[in-house]
Amino acid sequence: MSKIITVGREFGSGGRELGRRLAENLGFAYYDQEIITEIANRTELSEQYVQSIIERKPVISFPIHIGRSFYPMPNPSILQGQNLYQEQCRILRELSKETDCVIVGRCADHILRERKPFRIFAYAEMQSKIERCRKKGQEHEPMTDKEIRQHILEVDGHRAKYYNFYTVQKWGDRKNYDLCINTTRVDIKETASFLADFLKRVI
Amino acid sequence: MSKIITVGREFGSGGRELGRRLAENLGFAYYDQEIITEIANRTELSEQYVQSIIERKPVISFPIHIGRSFYPMPNPSILQGQNLYQEQCRILRELSKETDCVIVGRCADHILRERKPFRIFAYAEMQSKIERCRKKGQEHEPMTDKEIRQHILEVDGHRAKYYNFYTVQKWGDRKNYDLCINTTRVDIKETASFLADFLKRVI
Repeated sequence: MSKIITVGREFGSGGRELGRRLAENLGFAYYDQEIITEIANRTELSEQYVQSIIERKPVISFPIHIGRSFYPMPNPSILQGQNLYQEQCRILRELSKETDCVIVGRCADHILRERKPFRIFAYAEMQSKIERCRKKGQEHEPMTDKEIRQHILEVDGHRAKYYNFYTVQKWGDRKNYDLCINTTRVDIKETASFLADFLKRVI
Repeated sequence: MSKIITVGREFGSGGRELGRRLAENLGFAYYDQEIITEIANRTELSEQYVQSIIERKPVISFPIHIGRSFYPMPNPSILQGQNLYQEQCRILRELSKETDCVIVGRCADHILRERKPFRIFAYAEMQSKIERCRKKGQEHEPMTDKEIRQHILEVDGHRAKYYNFYTVQKWGDRKNYDLCINTTRVDIKETASFLADFLKRVI
């Protein structure tokens, strides 16, 4: 039975980086929400694509514009709402069936609950999230703290709404996770390294 | 400046054991809520007592009945409510002023917030808490799962009420902590060991 780690996160908390580094440290495959959404959007090719990903273990970590090059055909159909969610469920189950992996986002903690994933949630104080966003967005037009804060609240609002709707649980509620980590005062790289050593023992 | 780790916990989650083991692993002093309440109840002697504790570093971990032997005098007065809380605040500040320590309970995360403690919260699924309580209470008259569950809910209800009243924060809300750990599926001893190594780096 493969091992699964899921990472939920507040926007700007560094949770995605934590997930990616965890995968690297553990030698696990890495799937983030964009990859999974993209696969689900391209339903006709998904099985083949999923298969190609499963065969590319141990670490698969690529931005979605590279993923796109796998598909010369135009996107055949965009599945909306519940259909898209169902497709994502199917894909998550396939991706994780035989490959140890870290999955960021997409309600994976809930969808794969019968597989007993180790469920992480990353969060941070607002000022820390603003600073992280500012650092990451340096190539874009500068935004004020107020604008960044507004954007963070909007993204997390959508995430909470999506998660709460499909899981009938509360997004970010510690009861739904095995470990909740506040990244405000810690270094993500160092945290990922320690956490990977811990997870090697407990999962 | 001394280092402070605070541990909040659900009853039956093993948070107290986690705190004690963390202190042992780190070579920090250990204070739990009973010790602090007892000191606060014995106000007339507290400064002397506090001083004696400060001088006994690095690891101080003893049950309260041993603490009692320090006081041949009868308890002079029992301070109630807010007075007791104020006394506890003063004692917590003194205890942590010069000694690296782990403090379990007593709103220490909030009272000492200006000292930037590393704030841990331990929790677990109900069945896991029931089993832990049953194991610990083997010398007592056996209780049904329903009775243990009721007891857990009552204790945690009191803790939440106390914490929420004095801190104007929500007990167990991840936002108030640096790390929330679900002890359902992990070994406390092993977790304490990893966590101690992590904390040596980040605090």
